[in-house]
Amino acid sequence: MDTAHVATSTALLTDQYELTMLAAALADGSAHRQCTFEVFARRLPHGRRYGVAAGAGRMLDALAEFRFREPELAVAEKFLPADTMNWLRDYEFRGDIDGYGEGELYFPGSPILSVRGSFAECVVLETLILSILNHDSAIASAAARMVSAAGGRRMIEMGSRRTHELAAPASARAAYLAGFDATSNLEAVRRYGVPGAGTSAHAFTLLHTGSDGAHEAAAFRSQIEALGVGTTLLVDTFDITQGVATAIEVAGPELGGVRIDSGDLGVLARQVRDQLDALGATRTRIVVSGDLDEYSIAALRAEPVDAYGVGTSLVTGSGAPTAGMVYKLVEVEGVPVAKRSSHKESRGGTKRAVRLSRHTGTIVEEIVYPASGPAPETDGFEARELLTPMVRGGKIIEDRPPLQDSRALVAHGLVSLPWEGLKLSPGEPAIPTTFIP
Amino acid sequence: MDTAHVATSTALLTDQYELTMLAAALADGSAHRQCTFEVFARRLPHGRRYGVAAGAGRMLDALAEFRFREPELAVAEKFLPADTMNWLRDYEFRGDIDGYGEGELYFPGSPILSVRGSFAECVVLETLILSILNHDSAIASAAARMVSAAGGRRMIEMGSRRTHELAAPASARAAYLAGFDATSNLEAVRRYGVPGAGTSAHAFTLLHTGSDGAHEAAAFRSQIEALGVGTTLLVDTFDITQGVATAIEVAGPELGGVRIDSGDLGVLARQVRDQLDALGATRTRIVVSGDLDEYSIAALRAEPVDAYGVGTSLVTGSGAPTAGMVYKLVEVEGVPVAKRSSHKESRGGTKRAVRLSRHTGTIVEEIVYPASGPAPETDGFEARELLTPMVRGGKIIEDRPPLQDSRALVAHGLVSLPWEGLKLSPGEPAIPTTFIP
Repeated sequence: MDTAHVATSTALLTDQYELTMLAAALADGSAHRQCTFEVFARRLPHGRRYGVAAGAGRMLDALAEFRFREPELAVAEKFLPADTMNWLRDYEFRGDIDGYGEGELYFPGSPILSVRGSFAECVVLETLILSILNHDSAIASAAARMVSAAGGRRMIEMGSRRTHELAAPASARAAYLAGFDATSNLEAVRRYGVPGAGTSAHAFTLLHTGSDGAHEAAAFRSQIEALGVGTTLLVDTFDITQGVATAIEVAGPELGGVRIDSGDLGVLARQVRDQLDALGATRTRIVVSGDLDEYSIAALRAEPVDAYGVGTSLVTGSGAPTAGMVYKLVEVEGVPVAKRSSHKESRGGTKRAVRLSRHTGTIVEEIVYPASGPAPETDGFEARELLTPMVRGGKIIEDRPPLQDSRALVAHGLVSLPWEGLKLSPGEPAIPTTFIP
Repeated sequence: MDTAHVATSTALLTDQYELTMLAAALADGSAHRQCTFEVFARRLPHGRRYGVAAGAGRMLDALAEFRFREPELAVAEKFLPADTMNWLRDYEFRGDIDGYGEGELYFPGSPILSVRGSFAECVVLETLILSILNHDSAIASAAARMVSAAGGRRMIEMGSRRTHELAAPASARAAYLAGFDATSNLEAVRRYGVPGAGTSAHAFTLLHTGSDGAHEAAAFRSQIEALGVGTTLLVDTFDITQGVATAIEVAGPELGGVRIDSGDLGVLARQVRDQLDALGATRTRIVVSGDLDEYSIAALRAEPVDAYGVGTSLVTGSGAPTAGMVYKLVEVEGVPVAKRSSHKESRGGTKRAVRLSRHTGTIVEEIVYPASGPAPETDGFEARELLTPMVRGGKIIEDRPPLQDSRALVAHGLVSLPWEGLKLSPGEPAIPTTFIP
């Protein structure tokens, strides 16, 4: 057994029913019908006004590793007939995929991904595709709201401890894509090149405790000796006013920053700023952290805060930990198909989408139209096609955009929203979507 | 570069500040002080009445893979001095760990994990330990509420698509541990031996569409031929009454089950039960799914439902996607330490805990007491020690309990709660915790 492969095949990140459907479809011959599956969100969570599509890059990496070798086959053979096993052994996706670029905004019904091929080759990808897009889009969507609430101040992602250990680097990537500046997560630094950040915790101050009590000054001195005067000292382990005084006494006015992790952050930031300025440390930055979300970030906008450290609310999607996207069969051999279950209707047929904007750049509408029909009239608005080719004939398009391009796309998307679209309060999607039947 | 190792080392699932603190502590000599770090939750989420500790098994596996080899060192050397790099190269945890067994209930302040060793060897494990325990405990805690709401009916975990692709098998494991019966996730079947489940999706019915419309009967016939008459048919793609009639027409009254995935599940379950009984299919089971949580599961208790399929709300912790546990330094060289930050106080000193119960088995109180002091008086109650040895001198205790034992522990824990403890409504923790200073 090849252990390298056990760790990297993504083929079992799949729901069992995909393989039982495959077996039945292979047996009755329908498995080879040409199909289109589409990924979309029926709604945005909690009155959100936009979503940020993310995860396509990770999804394509995972697709390349979707192979059934011995360890995967050993699981499947317990419930599958021999011909299905043979089919799985040879499986690789040979179809086409188009999708919204990473960082593109989306709205209810946006056809975020279009997967085309035989039923068999498309149906087995459902869970893997949805897991990645739902997770990464949930984090990126929350992150974009925080970034826009922060109004240009530095944002550090530090939520690894509050999510699954391998969701953590993916969360850091999604946050960076949406405009965060850095992450505490070292695997995200290694794997995705996200800039790393971080200095000290309360434990480091508490470590410098003798039988006569705590020596905050000793902890600060040690940190500065090891990391330089540009480091950020955590000043709230005991008393913040004393902590700031000690910090500047030890570091001098060139100290890089102080971090406040508890209490009323707005009041404390102002107090600490005054104290730092009075001590001549006018360029020492103030970093705040501690259960921040987009609302508390926005509430601190008038305060002298230089950087935000965001953890729990970021990695849990700030109340919406999954984007709720679905993967639906919409076309079989050229015929549109759709279920009619109550409240879960879907729209049949392979689709494309354009987003219309005024010449000022403000977006006004998204139009979803049949791929087989003509592009819609755009009434003098500028129109941008939203689906870009990602896979052709099973081959992943090689010039995949780097994360920097996705960052630019999110930044551009936020600027292009009508002003109500940036409100944090619950409301309607920022632009309407028109579906041309 | 060894790719097997790249995939399996857990050393970079770490926040950068743990390594910068390490560097500073190595430089000033404090790194070698003997410390205790404890994991606990300050509170339970959203008025929950108990939590379920989970993840220790996965955490011990991850601990064994916490090694810095070339790929990890390459990231660390960008910000660390040479002596710290040498220390990391030789790193393995050589200390002791005690913890609440997987499946043990916990309450605010319960010392769920006690990690003892030098500051250096303990501090670097913070993020990895918390990521795993916070994720798995969040899922197990939500799952236990659903299991108790289901009153013994079959529970199938099917939420993989609504969480990170590698959080999905961990979620399936946590749900199984808490009393779920099966999972749709094949990687959880392979990795943890959780029983697999699953049959068909709407796409399979829609696939059987010709130019003259949909052939639901053809889809059902195909599924039964491939999977046998004991399979579960999804009957709500078009019209449920017609779907049930077609299902029994095709399968006969021995059909294993039907699944309803949309609409008013209570009304539909009763209607479908009547219809099945009238058709002679009195033993055909009814499986319901579609945005179920503990509240809707409880609301269906009076309806003829045989099994629940639960997705989104399970893998997102039903409103509490992280358990919010923290990892705090509580003792240095035998001296208790604690920070005094507002609202984030911690209690110094290495601790132990016992849970008291009446002779009926009902628990009444948890007592957390100093490990250096005597065991508390138990006033005629039965007392059970909650911390069990997991690691000694860096060596993982080999006779780790299997998941079946954890299932039994959760089941026993739920039975032992005072009756208010099983209420789904928000309230106080089911038992008080007393802290002996």
